[in-house]
Amino acid sequence: MRHMTLFVAAAALAAMAGQAAAQDADRPRARDLGVPFDGTPGPLNAITDVRGITVGHTTIIRGSGPLVVGEGPVRTGVTAIWPRGSDDPAPVFAAWFSLNGDGEMTGTTWVEDRGMMDTPLMITNTLSVGIVHHAVIRYGAAKSVETGNGAWLNALPVVAETWDGTLNDIRGQHVTEADAIAAMESATGGPVVEGNVGGGTGMRCHRFKAGIGTASRVVAVGDATYTVGVLVQCNYGSRDLLRVAGVPVGQEIPDLLPERPEPDTPGAGPQPPPASRDGSIIVVVATDAPLLPNQLKRVARRISLGLARNGSVSTGGSGDIFMAFSTANREATVGGEGEVPLVMLPNGRLDGIFRATVEGTEEAVINALVAGETMTGANDWTIHALPHDRLRDILRKYNRLVGG
Amino acid sequence: MRHMTLFVAAAALAAMAGQAAAQDADRPRARDLGVPFDGTPGPLNAITDVRGITVGHTTIIRGSGPLVVGEGPVRTGVTAIWPRGSDDPAPVFAAWFSLNGDGEMTGTTWVEDRGMMDTPLMITNTLSVGIVHHAVIRYGAAKSVETGNGAWLNALPVVAETWDGTLNDIRGQHVTEADAIAAMESATGGPVVEGNVGGGTGMRCHRFKAGIGTASRVVAVGDATYTVGVLVQCNYGSRDLLRVAGVPVGQEIPDLLPERPEPDTPGAGPQPPPASRDGSIIVVVATDAPLLPNQLKRVARRISLGLARNGSVSTGGSGDIFMAFSTANREATVGGEGEVPLVMLPNGRLDGIFRATVEGTEEAVINALVAGETMTGANDWTIHALPHDRLRDILRKYNRLVGG
Amino acid sequence: MRHMTLFVAAAALAAMAGQAAAQDADRPRARDLGVPFDGTPGPLNAITDVRGITVGHTTIIRGSGPLVVGEGPVRTGVTAIWPRGSDDPAPVFAAWFSLNGDGEMTGTTWVEDRGMMDTPLMITNTLSVGIVHHAVIRYGAAKSVETGNGAWLNALPVVAETWDGTLNDIRGQHVTEADAIAAMESATGGPVVEGNVGGGTGMRCHRFKAGIGTASRVVAVGDATYTVGVLVQCNYGSRDLLRVAGVPVGQEIPDLLPERPEPDTPGAGPQPPPASRDGSIIVVVATDAPLLPNQLKRVARRISLGLARNGSVSTGGSGDIFMAFSTANREATVGGEGEVPLVMLPNGRLDGIFRATVEGTEEAVINALVAGETMTGANDWTIHALPHDRLRDILRKYNRLVGG
Amino acid sequence: MRHMTLFVAAAALAAMAGQAAAQDADRPRARDLGVPFDGTPGPLNAITDVRGITVGHTTIIRGSGPLVVGEGPVRTGVTAIWPRGSDDPAPVFAAWFSLNGDGEMTGTTWVEDRGMMDTPLMITNTLSVGIVHHAVIRYGAAKSVETGNGAWLNALPVVAETWDGTLNDIRGQHVTEADAIAAMESATGGPVVEGNVGGGTGMRCHRFKAGIGTASRVVAVGDATYTVGVLVQCNYGSRDLLRVAGVPVGQEIPDLLPERPEPDTPGAGPQPPPASRDGSIIVVVATDAPLLPNQLKRVARRISLGLARNGSVSTGGSGDIFMAFSTANREATVGGEGEVPLVMLPNGRLDGIFRATVEGTEEAVINALVAGETMTGANDWTIHALPHDRLRDILRKYNRLVGG
Repeated sequence: MRHMTLFVAAAALAAMAGQAAAQDADRPRARDLGVPFDGTPGPLNAITDVRGITVGHTTIIRGSGPLVVGEGPVRTGVTAIWPRGSDDPAPVFAAWFSLNGDGEMTGTTWVEDRGMMDTPLMITNTLSVGIVHHAVIRYGAAKSVETGNGAWLNALPVVAETWDGTLNDIRGQHVTEADAIAAMESATGGPVVEGNVGGGTGMRCHRFKAGIGTASRVVAVGDATYTVGVLVQCNYGSRDLLRVAGVPVGQEIPDLLPERPEPDTPGAGPQPPPASRDGSIIVVVATDAPLLPNQLKRVARRISLGLARNGSVSTGGSGDIFMAFSTANREATVGGEGEVPLVMLPNGRLDGIFRATVEGTEEAVINALVAGETMTGANDWTIHALPHDRLRDILRKYNRLVGG
Repeated sequence: MRHMTLFVAAAALAAMAGQAAAQDADRPRARDLGVPFDGTPGPLNAITDVRGITVGHTTIIRGSGPLVVGEGPVRTGVTAIWPRGSDDPAPVFAAWFSLNGDGEMTGTTWVEDRGMMDTPLMITNTLSVGIVHHAVIRYGAAKSVETGNGAWLNALPVVAETWDGTLNDIRGQHVTEADAIAAMESATGGPVVEGNVGGGTGMRCHRFKAGIGTASRVVAVGDATYTVGVLVQCNYGSRDLLRVAGVPVGQEIPDLLPERPEPDTPGAGPQPPPASRDGSIIVVVATDAPLLPNQLKRVARRISLGLARNGSVSTGGSGDIFMAFSTANREATVGGEGEVPLVMLPNGRLDGIFRATVEGTEEAVINALVAGETMTGANDWTIHALPHDRLRDILRKYNRLVGG
Repeated sequence: MRHMTLFVAAAALAAMAGQAAAQDADRPRARDLGVPFDGTPGPLNAITDVRGITVGHTTIIRGSGPLVVGEGPVRTGVTAIWPRGSDDPAPVFAAWFSLNGDGEMTGTTWVEDRGMMDTPLMITNTLSVGIVHHAVIRYGAAKSVETGNGAWLNALPVVAETWDGTLNDIRGQHVTEADAIAAMESATGGPVVEGNVGGGTGMRCHRFKAGIGTASRVVAVGDATYTVGVLVQCNYGSRDLLRVAGVPVGQEIPDLLPERPEPDTPGAGPQPPPASRDGSIIVVVATDAPLLPNQLKRVARRISLGLARNGSVSTGGSGDIFMAFSTANREATVGGEGEVPLVMLPNGRLDGIFRATVEGTEEAVINALVAGETMTGANDWTIHALPHDRLRDILRKYNRLVGG
Repeated sequence: MRHMTLFVAAAALAAMAGQAAAQDADRPRARDLGVPFDGTPGPLNAITDVRGITVGHTTIIRGSGPLVVGEGPVRTGVTAIWPRGSDDPAPVFAAWFSLNGDGEMTGTTWVEDRGMMDTPLMITNTLSVGIVHHAVIRYGAAKSVETGNGAWLNALPVVAETWDGTLNDIRGQHVTEADAIAAMESATGGPVVEGNVGGGTGMRCHRFKAGIGTASRVVAVGDATYTVGVLVQCNYGSRDLLRVAGVPVGQEIPDLLPERPEPDTPGAGPQPPPASRDGSIIVVVATDAPLLPNQLKRVARRISLGLARNGSVSTGGSGDIFMAFSTANREATVGGEGEVPLVMLPNGRLDGIFRATVEGTEEAVINALVAGETMTGANDWTIHALPHDRLRDILRKYNRLVGG
């Protein structure tokens, strides 16, 4: 997967922002640190284990110091998920669920009624939803003219968001049409970069730096094997609630909270906007199992359970909004003049998928936390990374460290 | 279709209650009177035009004069609808919708999640929902023991209701398990008796006597032809709102309101309970078109539009609750160990089904009104039938009488 | 209410587009033509009868002849509704409903959960939702900086749409941030211009020219009097289904369908995009009655019934999406540290509000049809106005003409 | 709280069934064993900490040995919850949520629309929902005649269930009207008996014996203090998924699974019905905080998160159905002719309530497990209690034992 970082002024800035290592394929993931998880992941332990899915990130990092609305500093981005890759505009069966609705995911009204989602699915910051929506339409309109294929014109795009207003000049609306299109065009299969990238660039979770995370599970149903993949843009939660594998990690690390220089320090600008919307998570669950829309709704609802394993109580200012889709039954989603054939899993055979959804969500969030790297942004606020060594120590203390 | 009337004491009583003619196959339906409707009905213009569906009624009429709770008079019953007939316990794809929720339809939580309904679907009076629910389970438990087929045990039956507390000693809870089982066992295909029968025995609509009504439409989609059938238990609405084929019939017949002897008349008992719940409609839409649960949800929602054509504003005390199901894809509903094949209509090909739903609902309600016959019940309340001749005169006045 | 028309090149163009008369306060509305409606309208028979509401339109008309994506012709716009006027960012209690979901109304996830809507509510064309969303945030961010009042920053705006792709180069995305802000800033109380204005500029309904329509009702509940106001952006429906006051007007006017010069006519460009999404309606119902969110949900659901009176079956490609809000209980919507007082209407006292919702919706749609004026747009497509004289003749034929 | 056990033949039987100790007020609860929980419970750590709430159980235990449908053995019951006590028929603001819908909770359609619940709320076994529904209406009808207060007639009762078909002759439908009425009439405030009582008599959870559990939390919001109480009827889950305070207790106790004598053992009857429906939980959350229906919906949705902390993935055959209600604003729920005053908590002040809901649910389930006592029932199936000593050992192993 190509990972595009735009507008990075200098290596020094990049280092400060902690995104250089974001491209480091060798950095550990949660399993590598000995966090115990149930279930069997796919080869990449990523949403891209579901065949055909591609992911692209545009990461936008520039400026430092006091926040000036419209100027920066900028710590934000866009992530694009193509359920069938960027060459195939066929929709997918889909369903959505809102655990707490203080957020946006456009396009859901049609997803709800039709049981399908047009592609791609985009994630960005809260105040850039409009421009990314505009860009997806522009992209599709151009493709529809270029190819003569009206299916490209996605008139009701799905664009979701979380709020990066602590580190990012979010009110400056720095994401551009070009940024959104770059995320779409850069999408590839293969490993998904996690942490401070794409829509997750400026995000934090349980008051540690977080952002994008992903995981997957392989599930046997009868004679068949299916994959369930999860991708999160993770930005919620208080510190004390954080549990990792059931261990009260948040209570064990009361320090390393977000911090900034004293307000009277030279260079400390005005306070950031109230953090009330600072706390959301977008979760996308994908599978190649042939699920009908009502079955995908059941999957989407269970994403809540994965979050709860990590301690979420879904606070009132959170936009905890989820999409589940199936890449199966492509021909049926394209339709025709009359009856079209498809296949489905019986309702009585879904438990493995449900369990994979919960487990995959749990792990994707911890992966986002493990991948996040300390970042300093607007008004010199710093959000710290979850320290890997302390995480291991705490897991060991509670006799939960794998291989430890 | 056999039509079972239980406990009828005497011909005189039956005549008074207006149900003798309920069995008269020659009485006119709305079309026969020249009411204009759009669309093409099936051969029976009934829900039983959808192949396999059977309907049974238990009609309970006994006693007259002052209401004594627990004694009578009784004007009530039960209607049973078997989507695949009473020999086949396979579920059907289904979805439900509540336009106004002051009513009960049990079993909907599982219908919503699973996208299927176990059978049969039962309709009775509000205060007899429990005993009918109990009876369906008893019936299924016995069949499951008898046949060794656990599929018969419908643990979450669908039982719906409207309130017949004006004519019926509803608080007396006169419906018995035997009554419910009799409705199930008497179900047949063929013409459906309408009006003062089954669950509709004591019901009224726009303050005229009404009860059960049915209609159907034949719909071409591509090369295929499907049937949409509707059955209503109709018990809602104020007089002035009634429109027939867009004509303000209710405003033209301000008389013939429900009436009773003066309260100081010998034999006039205590006032009936408040009429606040007096005003509901249960609508069942069936089709053989292969619709998925999310598509059936779209069908169910459109039932509202058929009611609105006849003037409904869905008052706040109404239980306007709808079920839509498809008899197609039987094997898929039965399930299996792994993927099962099915067919679906593309989302872009549903308009004919939607239109048929609206038209069929519109006509089924008018059929219930046309079939209802004047009935006197508890405390000598009389609910009048919609006079056929005046209906025709009014349609003629507004230049809407067919053949008129 | 000021009505801003931007970029009109010439009087000749304006005349051709039929929007000059859009500002003509003397043109008749449906009641003036003798269409019978039930209920009592407010003084303006408009949504602005609900005290405090302001409405602004930006109408964009330029170019003619063959469609060139990105160049034109342009027949579109934006309509802004401020529930409390543009000086008050306090939210309103609100609820939404989707009768058919092939459309967009952003912001509904938070409306659903919180039971409130931040303001304003915007309506535009389908492919301009993103830019209008972006503009509302930009406007609010600037106001929040300017006033130091964070309540101005509406991070989750409500933006809705219908598709004007027959007359308008919709893929050209011609609406700008400035257009959206102009609609917000131009909003006033008083009469609401209807027809070919604002978001309704290029819209059509039952294949006649339509666009914006409005109506209101005054409702007595106990000793109090409330107002229910409705505004529609109307763009749905086949001709034959159109009923006016129950009269089959659509069947009586099979001619005057949308038309264009022969494809081989010089100047006739490529066919417009498929009309599948050509058929939606956004309905906004406002009231000063103190309704809780769950009660407003009941109001929103009943909007369907008003549409059905005019013949809608809500076709599958329609985005029939509704918002209902209450301007009462302002202080409660603003909140505080602990319990805040408010008032509500009991659930048993809502029938007048429900009926007003149905009647007001019915009339607002017909007002949009009556106000629409013949317009020629992209590729020389012409959408005809509903001829007032023929409408009166048909109402007379069916004995429904008031004063006729 | 009085606890009624009906039909217990002999002390020996009672001991076998494990319900004698169910009345033992001295038996430990989860906290007493050293299980760590967050938050501050109320004085009773029970739903009855919410002032006014009363709870009554009818426990039905009789017979042993081979199952004969209609004869027994019987291990079932009914639990009644009166939100305002059994002397006050005023409704409560309420909302419901279904995490997985393979279950029944009647009355929810009206709860959803009206935002209120009539009382009481009943919980029983799956196949006795009908008779309990019938009994609540009978009880209310009699009270309405007796008192002349129509508010007593609860026409749309809320009756929920889980499946006790392993230990109980569920198909025998042994619950009677008298049993249901006894539960209603025996309800009191004070401590709530947990475990093998009432509707929970025959239930099991994570394949240990469970049943009824309860807990509460005290929450400060601004200057006020509110109570959140939880009651569960707990009957779900596989063993390996069980987590207690994040510790994988289920994986540590792979033994003590449900067991029965060998099938060829004399006295071993036919296999019980498939366990597919064996796995549900009903959760009731009550508060005295003044929440509106849409806010209670948010509470209800969060119950899922409490279940997830204990390991639930909400399997497909589970009926995980929740009700949340508020006892505040009594006068507003009673209504009147016009506007009625009430109070609400602002949406921004709900986080403490949300957190209490999650924590209280988590603890109520563990309390049900701790209170459950080994029971032998139909066909000599035995469901084992969670061994307290082993639970403590495991918590100690994972460094999570309080005081340990």
